[in-house]
Amino acid sequence: MQAWAAFDTDGSFAPHTIPRRAAGPKDVVVEIMYSSICHSDIHTYKGDWGMPQFPLVPGHEMVGRVVGIGAEVTKFREGDVAGVGTMVDSCGTCANCLADREQNCLNGTTFTYNSEDKISGGVTYGGYSKKIVVKEDFALRIPPGVDLAGFAPLLCAGITTFSPINHWDLQPGQRYGVIGMGGLGHLAVKLAAAKGAEVVVFTTSEDKIADAKAFGAAEAYLWSDEAAMRSQMGSFDLMLSTVPVAYPMQQFLNLLKLDKTLVNVGALFPIEGAHGMMMGFGRQSLAGSMTGGIAETQRVIDFAAHHGVAATYEMITPEQIGEACEKVVNKQARYRYVIDMTQA
Amino acid sequence: MQAWAAFDTDGSFAPHTIPRRAAGPKDVVVEIMYSSICHSDIHTYKGDWGMPQFPLVPGHEMVGRVVGIGAEVTKFREGDVAGVGTMVDSCGTCANCLADREQNCLNGTTFTYNSEDKISGGVTYGGYSKKIVVKEDFALRIPPGVDLAGFAPLLCAGITTFSPINHWDLQPGQRYGVIGMGGLGHLAVKLAAAKGAEVVVFTTSEDKIADAKAFGAAEAYLWSDEAAMRSQMGSFDLMLSTVPVAYPMQQFLNLLKLDKTLVNVGALFPIEGAHGMMMGFGRQSLAGSMTGGIAETQRVIDFAAHHGVAATYEMITPEQIGEACEKVVNKQARYRYVIDMTQA
Repeated sequence: MQAWAAFDTDGSFAPHTIPRRAAGPKDVVVEIMYSSICHSDIHTYKGDWGMPQFPLVPGHEMVGRVVGIGAEVTKFREGDVAGVGTMVDSCGTCANCLADREQNCLNGTTFTYNSEDKISGGVTYGGYSKKIVVKEDFALRIPPGVDLAGFAPLLCAGITTFSPINHWDLQPGQRYGVIGMGGLGHLAVKLAAAKGAEVVVFTTSEDKIADAKAFGAAEAYLWSDEAAMRSQMGSFDLMLSTVPVAYPMQQFLNLLKLDKTLVNVGALFPIEGAHGMMMGFGRQSLAGSMTGGIAETQRVIDFAAHHGVAATYEMITPEQIGEACEKVVNKQARYRYVIDMTQA
Repeated sequence: MQAWAAFDTDGSFAPHTIPRRAAGPKDVVVEIMYSSICHSDIHTYKGDWGMPQFPLVPGHEMVGRVVGIGAEVTKFREGDVAGVGTMVDSCGTCANCLADREQNCLNGTTFTYNSEDKISGGVTYGGYSKKIVVKEDFALRIPPGVDLAGFAPLLCAGITTFSPINHWDLQPGQRYGVIGMGGLGHLAVKLAAAKGAEVVVFTTSEDKIADAKAFGAAEAYLWSDEAAMRSQMGSFDLMLSTVPVAYPMQQFLNLLKLDKTLVNVGALFPIEGAHGMMMGFGRQSLAGSMTGGIAETQRVIDFAAHHGVAATYEMITPEQIGEACEKVVNKQARYRYVIDMTQA
């Protein structure tokens, strides 16, 4: 099976042949059409989160055509469109799996790439490839009428930004701050605006101010705008930080109302600059969140289809993966790179 | 009015004469009987939280006899026992005051010491003194039959540890972790045990293990007990950190169940060692909390009286304040020093 793999922490991508298992009775074979680049793909091959296993085939946001189904598959028919996100397997029987929290499987979730493959042995390979074989339970139904390339990023960025909105119960009219507007952040804005929230974006890129408003934000500010930051003090019902590096967070915790929460989905490193006394004074919380379960992922796909939300993206060829990754790091993505596998 | 003041950041305490205003129509005059030493008194004179104004008269946990009342006072009669906690004034009209959050007064709370005194001018002086004059709204009713010296610490340590139990809705039978068992922590244990929670203490002092169980904890462990720490992973419904210094917190965040919260009431400094990815994986939160409103403070006093909870303390004379403060820092307090003003 053809794939595109990183061979070192510099992210030198090259074509690479990987094994894919034959479809088991509950598996679907998905011919990948669109696979998008998530910043975590880059963190992984760079080794930011531990040692990557090279050759590494990233990709956990993919949409494609079901071209084969096992004998016991009931969720898909051949020709359907399916998505695969951050996970491809879990035990299905532990308390967390039974609570639709497969990402917290007590027996160990199998993530889509760079994870132990309990079925085939070895390591899992992700969506920077032509096909994937996956248990039907871990494939998502994609409505065929949507922008399929724009739906690929929902499989990670979409669920990652949708899940906090659900869990912290963001209501229409409430003020929702989104810190950082890249792949995650721009979907956070679109999804929360579709929910009727009053979305305010904080960015470090001047040209994203106008984009934020086009995506549905009521207001957008540069972090460096001290007057704006002051004017927002104590005004938010919920905030989401999508910035993919550690940075001092108290400046944004100060913008929350009493008792409210800033959810960090981007800085998966030691937390910086949160201050015990300042958080205590207003009883604010700093929470972590990461992806979501399969049922909740289906929910964001259905919600996005219903509200006409999809990622804003630039299409690239597999040969451009390395270059696109560099642009992601340099904040040049507008707003997701989608690899077109249909021509590859 | 005689008081005992710190004159420098070394905590050299000496007698000092302070002004107290004449009682206004809504004021009560309280002859202080028992005033206890809170670690924040020490942080304040040391300058850990900014420049203290010397001579500094700390003390925001005091119980005494009402010996004078203004003409319009309705909440107390002469001879009643009253307590004064962390605050002595707020605007009373802002949204936060109206929501019983006087500690978050939008026009500025007057704290009991080292705070701008908006009524008399100058700075406020706390409970290391013979009398205090305070608005009746900021005085708490203390049931006369209780251990008055043991009730003084409820005015700060009690409300500070009771408020998170209320806000995060700790239920009977739930597992509640208490990190650090000093003045705050030992009351956290007693109050949560009285609520029927299954309390587990984490301490660095071996001799506190037995005390923790005597206070109502089901289990108690040393932080250094790695096997115990592992055995507690993912088991807590709520945790409270009362440790008065910054320390790596992820080791305790790991002990929470999915979606649960560690509330920090002790380390009022930059947060250390919380990790974005590890918090994200289980969607845990790190929250701040600080004191509580007047109504909630009355509630903890009434709760403690009903359940027979009071602080465990050693009585000292005013001359021993400096020495006692050193012992607090050296973790030698068992578990609060109460200054006996009745003999002073």
